Amino acid sequence: MKLREIGEFGLIARIKKSWPPSSPRVIQGMGDDAAVSSLCPGDDLVSTVDLLIEDVHFDLSFIDPFPLGRKSLAVNLSDLAAMGATPRWMLISLALPSRLSVEFVDQFFAGLRSVAEPHGVSLIGGDTSSSPDRLFISITLLGEGKRGALVYRHGAKPGDDLYVTGTLGDSLVGLHLAKGLKGRAPSPEEKFLLERHFDPTPRLEEGRALAEGKLARAMIDISDGLLSDLGHICEESRVGALIWAGRIPQSAPFRSLVPASPGEEWKWALKGGEDYELLFSAPPERADELGALGKSWPCGITRIGRVEPLNHGVVVRTEKGPVDPSYLKGYDHFA
Amino acid sequence: MKLREIGEFGLIARIKKSWPPSSPRVIQGMGDDAAVSSLCPGDDLVSTVDLLIEDVHFDLSFIDPFPLGRKSLAVNLSDLAAMGATPRWMLISLALPSRLSVEFVDQFFAGLRSVAEPHGVSLIGGDTSSSPDRLFISITLLGEGKRGALVYRHGAKPGDDLYVTGTLGDSLVGLHLAKGLKGRAPSPEEKFLLERHFDPTPRLEEGRALAEGKLARAMIDISDGLLSDLGHICEESRVGALIWAGRIPQSAPFRSLVPASPGEEWKWALKGGEDYELLFSAPPERADELGALGKSWPCGITRIGRVEPLNHGVVVRTEKGPVDPSYLKGYDHFA
Repeated sequence: MKLREIGEFGLIARIKKSWPPSSPRVIQGMGDDAAVSSLCPGDDLVSTVDLLIEDVHFDLSFIDPFPLGRKSLAVNLSDLAAMGATPRWMLISLALPSRLSVEFVDQFFAGLRSVAEPHGVSLIGGDTSSSPDRLFISITLLGEGKRGALVYRHGAKPGDDLYVTGTLGDSLVGLHLAKGLKGRAPSPEEKFLLERHFDPTPRLEEGRALAEGKLARAMIDISDGLLSDLGHICEESRVGALIWAGRIPQSAPFRSLVPASPGEEWKWALKGGEDYELLFSAPPERADELGALGKSWPCGITRIGRVEPLNHGVVVRTEKGPVDPSYLKGYDHFA
Repeated sequence: MKLREIGEFGLIARIKKSWPPSSPRVIQGMGDDAAVSSLCPGDDLVSTVDLLIEDVHFDLSFIDPFPLGRKSLAVNLSDLAAMGATPRWMLISLALPSRLSVEFVDQFFAGLRSVAEPHGVSLIGGDTSSSPDRLFISITLLGEGKRGALVYRHGAKPGDDLYVTGTLGDSLVGLHLAKGLKGRAPSPEEKFLLERHFDPTPRLEEGRALAEGKLARAMIDISDGLLSDLGHICEESRVGALIWAGRIPQSAPFRSLVPASPGEEWKWALKGGEDYELLFSAPPERADELGALGKSWPCGITRIGRVEPLNHGVVVRTEKGPVDPSYLKGYDHFA
């Protein structure tokens, strides 16, 4: 069915109907000039927005609407995870090219819901429009955090240990594999890496535990790549950092399928974006606690380096010595 | 200067630098995974999002980046005005085609700031990206409202009077004029109508006064046209309505320049979108208070009709009798 057959208000009514009733703290959800919700006393409001554009952030020949919906929300949830906040409400802006069907939009929202529901996120508002060319998705996610127990990018101190959750580089190898599959059924290892790219898991419980236990002093989620996101922590905390390339955690499927020369696998883990793992600094005296906590989490945590004074800059060391600084550059949307 | 010369992080740094320091209630503004802000005790969070797409909502051959920035925020402010809420914080998603210059983006943000500052709105977050074709702007506006003193689309009761602020139809005539100007300098009347289209005034103080004085029982801002937005109040309040076409307030420049047959000017005022005036219902016993309040406002208020029982539907009356119901249809983005 074409979008023009149901029209803008028909589409909005369809979205409203398909979404479960809002949580009790939503006073007014979709269907007014603005949404109204009540914050827990003593909590602060935490807000983030992420933009996903067809042919920039995703390619509809590689991703179906259901996983696209899942990923669109997951990347936002990951931002709240990196603050130690609890997600509550979302607003969505959606510009839809006329070539897309109502079924496409239904599947997209079904994907969104499949991530929103287990995390208790209500859709409270949005705006829809036609789009002349590309599909454009902007999701604003609102959450709450205990006042004084949120973790920022600033706060890392020289001498802190640097940790990451999970494994790095899987997502980039997954994207690389997707482009080469051409309809062939993936092996179990390939499937793992594809899922790591197309269906990332936001580390919400882990982020909240690190924040509420005051274990993490600075934290960020790895969306642009370890190196690039570490750079944000260093900049905001006014510190340098040392990373041991050999300690960057790699999954077994990553190690068996990464298209890198032997001994250079760490490059994919260092620069690969969209892993949505957490990177955080913690004082060394909390190492035992963190070790125990990491063992209790399926994703685990790994110590990969140390916070250094600002004038040390960011240094990556392999067994052969420090990596050439000119290699250490992030991804830029406009460059 | 091209966007690629300063890059994504350069652009973000430039935006951060150009924006005034955040208000005291912003704990963490731009530059982290998410923004953190604290709500006034006893207030509820009010959130809205608006999407503006090049060649759908605006045409860069008719609007410069500075007024585009102003209008992008004004339309959101108008939504909070219609709730009786106070705007506080904004997040912006911006997808920028590479043909646009850094100066364009600077001017756009200067326009945004020129509206944000007098209303006390801080920019607390956002996401930027390149765009393959069109400029996409999505602004999420967050505000606060006194618990129990916000006004919704539901709440209108049969017997209520219907009022609007300001005059209607100016914006549509302004848009019509813009397309015909072709570089010619506008007359003062034309200038008034062009400004009504390109630089609308959100009725924030008026909305707040109506809400806090518990004068309005249901309220909406007129973005899609009086008829279409009245339809939302009727739907959410489960009521009908009667509008006297001859009472719809028209400005003198509108009356002198509207390209309608004599006696049919009301059609432009009834269906014209983007006036961003407030439409509200109020119990008749508050008419004197409302009259006095309207006299104290430069925009004024006008009683244009009455709320009727649901089964009466929406009726528009001219001196000649009721308007043909088939004429009474709103604008649809996908139709």
